[in-house]
Amino acid sequence: MFEEKKAEWLHIAESLKPTLHRETVRPISGMPDHALAENDQIVLDFGNHFVGRLTLKLSSQGSHPDAPVWLAVKFCENARELNETLDGYTGWISKGWVQQEQAHIDVLPAVFHFSRRYAFRFVKIDVLALSLRYRLVIEDVFAEVTTAADDSVLCPLKGDARDIIIDRIALRTLRNCMQDFFEDGPKRDRRLWMGDLRLQALTNSVTYRNDALVRRCLYLFAATADREGRIAACLFTEPRVEADDTYMFDYSLFFIPTLLQYAQATGDRTTMDDLLPLALHQLALAEAQFDPETQLIRDSDRLGWCFVDWALPLNKQFCAQAIWIYCARAALQMKTDPLLEEKVLLRREAARKHWYDRERRLFVSGAERQISWASQVWAVLAGIAEGADAAACLDAAAACPDALPMVTPYMMHHYAEALCCVNRKTQARQVIRDYWGAMADQGTDTYWELFNPADPDESPYGSPVVNSFCHAWSCTPAWFLRSGILEENAQNTRA
Amino acid sequence: MFEEKKAEWLHIAESLKPTLHRETVRPISGMPDHALAENDQIVLDFGNHFVGRLTLKLSSQGSHPDAPVWLAVKFCENARELNETLDGYTGWISKGWVQQEQAHIDVLPAVFHFSRRYAFRFVKIDVLALSLRYRLVIEDVFAEVTTAADDSVLCPLKGDARDIIIDRIALRTLRNCMQDFFEDGPKRDRRLWMGDLRLQALTNSVTYRNDALVRRCLYLFAATADREGRIAACLFTEPRVEADDTYMFDYSLFFIPTLLQYAQATGDRTTMDDLLPLALHQLALAEAQFDPETQLIRDSDRLGWCFVDWALPLNKQFCAQAIWIYCARAALQMKTDPLLEEKVLLRREAARKHWYDRERRLFVSGAERQISWASQVWAVLAGIAEGADAAACLDAAAACPDALPMVTPYMMHHYAEALCCVNRKTQARQVIRDYWGAMADQGTDTYWELFNPADPDESPYGSPVVNSFCHAWSCTPAWFLRSGILEENAQNTRA
Repeated sequence: MFEEKKAEWLHIAESLKPTLHRETVRPISGMPDHALAENDQIVLDFGNHFVGRLTLKLSSQGSHPDAPVWLAVKFCENARELNETLDGYTGWISKGWVQQEQAHIDVLPAVFHFSRRYAFRFVKIDVLALSLRYRLVIEDVFAEVTTAADDSVLCPLKGDARDIIIDRIALRTLRNCMQDFFEDGPKRDRRLWMGDLRLQALTNSVTYRNDALVRRCLYLFAATADREGRIAACLFTEPRVEADDTYMFDYSLFFIPTLLQYAQATGDRTTMDDLLPLALHQLALAEAQFDPETQLIRDSDRLGWCFVDWALPLNKQFCAQAIWIYCARAALQMKTDPLLEEKVLLRREAARKHWYDRERRLFVSGAERQISWASQVWAVLAGIAEGADAAACLDAAAACPDALPMVTPYMMHHYAEALCCVNRKTQARQVIRDYWGAMADQGTDTYWELFNPADPDESPYGSPVVNSFCHAWSCTPAWFLRSGILEENAQNTRA
Repeated sequence: MFEEKKAEWLHIAESLKPTLHRETVRPISGMPDHALAENDQIVLDFGNHFVGRLTLKLSSQGSHPDAPVWLAVKFCENARELNETLDGYTGWISKGWVQQEQAHIDVLPAVFHFSRRYAFRFVKIDVLALSLRYRLVIEDVFAEVTTAADDSVLCPLKGDARDIIIDRIALRTLRNCMQDFFEDGPKRDRRLWMGDLRLQALTNSVTYRNDALVRRCLYLFAATADREGRIAACLFTEPRVEADDTYMFDYSLFFIPTLLQYAQATGDRTTMDDLLPLALHQLALAEAQFDPETQLIRDSDRLGWCFVDWALPLNKQFCAQAIWIYCARAALQMKTDPLLEEKVLLRREAARKHWYDRERRLFVSGAERQISWASQVWAVLAGIAEGADAAACLDAAAACPDALPMVTPYMMHHYAEALCCVNRKTQARQVIRDYWGAMADQGTDTYWELFNPADPDESPYGSPVVNSFCHAWSCTPAWFLRSGILEENAQNTRA
């Protein structure tokens, strides 16, 4: 499917490759005022989170260096990582992501460039070896840092001081994920993921307005759809543009609202018309997952991976049905289709009928009728819950101590958005101030991939050392604070 | 002194910088026949000792790599080093010399060049991290190896099979130390040392005949003499030519026999005449060390560093006097000087008078009249011991269990040469077969910096992990076997 279009789509994507903004930054503290001996350690603080390449300018004191300098260099997104080690690491995400290097430098003075790109605020340098005859002088340390975001287009946010801080961190998070494409995290994965792109594009539309980068990413996904026309969950651009062999029910469908959102933000109908058939095709591909009699989607154990949240115990049957409806409604905004419209109505009714617990006033999921926050959030966003029922199901989750909790900032975004949908603006604002604000209170420069206020060590990967601390899907507070959606008189939904 | 000459000398030295012979080599065994997973290890055997830069050609199997490859790579001159670690290393030579690297490779396929040069036969690669979604394919491994030696000028050695093996290893040792200059060891130090150069130039004169490289090294030493005209023990060529601030009594003086030997081997009188004043000046500088009344040199605790051998308990007073005489006699072969001739005679007599133990028929050294092998060897080489006394003192050392033993191949060279001087050719040949042959028996490709047949862990640096296993001063068996000196009818001494 669409094979004849892909070369052109790739060409468009590549033509939109951004010229990165480059800047040279230096540490604001930690530069040693003395020459270093073996076993010395320094910790450089660059004063903010950056993405780029480090250079060390080194010389020596004492006799002519008669042995190589051997350094261990660790790049940390936050101060906590400085003391983490890989000893006993058993997580299932590769420890190769931990940003640490060793380097031998044979000749001094030297200008030593690290060829790899890192995401960091802190750089720890351990002098593993020198000789007794000389000491190491760190003459200069600087990094060439990059972003595809243009800081100069930003308007300052006015209002509450805490909101301004929360917004600033969100902007930094988005900015540092904006590189050759919208990366999920500049420390780890460094990939284009549909789930992240959707929220990045949303936030970008009211901040940096790099619409060309969004367009590029839409075309990258289009160009890498598989032979059946299915859009991958994520893709790589190196050594060449290629989809990962990971497909997620929700992420494929999210191409639709991402395209809609782009078209609404830019008015670029050409791109919308070009990619709409592929977008609609994602709905068609999803058809196989529905029982034509009940209009219910398969249960999540037979559905393949549907992400929703980083919560393994979460039953995703209800959310998957809701997300299909959410995306079908987005499609209907781009193209009228009476048949699709009817399907949406049927599947909304089927969902209400099978999964609404009238007594508890909330939606359950799966054969075991699991109660989760995620189901209520998607019931609201998809318009399955309507009127008083919508706010009620969110309240019911809050009142149910057994309701499976939300895990990621990604899911928290959807919760805050659902609150806006039911006109609980103050509560939505409070969610942002409490959840993202709690990260801000820890002095972070960027928002994290994972944040459980009750357990800062939580990681879906078995260890926090591989967590990403500047992660795209956490950038949406800037959208909430700048789009006007939190204003009482704003429209209730985006859809 | 000689300040006005130094720029020209440096210019001559740099004009003689060799064009290195380059060759691409690949492992003869150890290439994996399967893709590697995390924690896999391979050991590549290149089949011989090489000096050069490694390239890995890597690809992947499975899904698109979603995490960097993290490798630990160790370069080993011999198989024993493969299992050595730096855990608990407390030696005083920098552990930065241990040839190990870590590398992260972000994108596959990749051609990964290691920028540093290594000396190795074996390369061990540990896969520290991959992801679970792909495996690492080692497509190709090759090294661009270098030497300033031209293998094609060598004549095959005829004769005893064991000698042929011993010679081959000696040649390999010399060859792999011949790079931009005569290095002491391509793994560790990688510097131009006078003590090594003298023996390298000697062996070069009957093997590779790269006389220009010897000339270059003489000029490098000349150009870096200090303001008093003293020649350094060693020098660096990077980042620019510069003497180390290490001076040794014997090494400064050895400029003289090295120059003589070069002139004899090449007939290049121009170079000899150019550098002779500086050579003779080393004798003049040594004058301050002698008591004009007794004609005895200071004891070694007040002499500064006089190397002789890697033996800290060795009293070097006698050897220092002998080495001065040895070098003065070399000077007299280049230029007649009745006053110097007289001094040589006086100092030889003084040495005999003060340090010859007539009863034991050997030479002692220092106030405590220490008995060492080194003193007997230098008594012979300097002509202090003459006639029957010469062989007798070597025999006496052998018969004295308390005689301080020899430590290095460097000292063993001088012992074998002393045996030739006293016409003990068969015994000299046996020393070579026993001592260097014992290294050969261990399957080595090159001779080591240190070798004590009774203690293979011996190291002057506190740990064998920093020992050099291809070390210039151990290359002289090829000189013994090829110069004819072991033939019964050969002249007894070089001087």
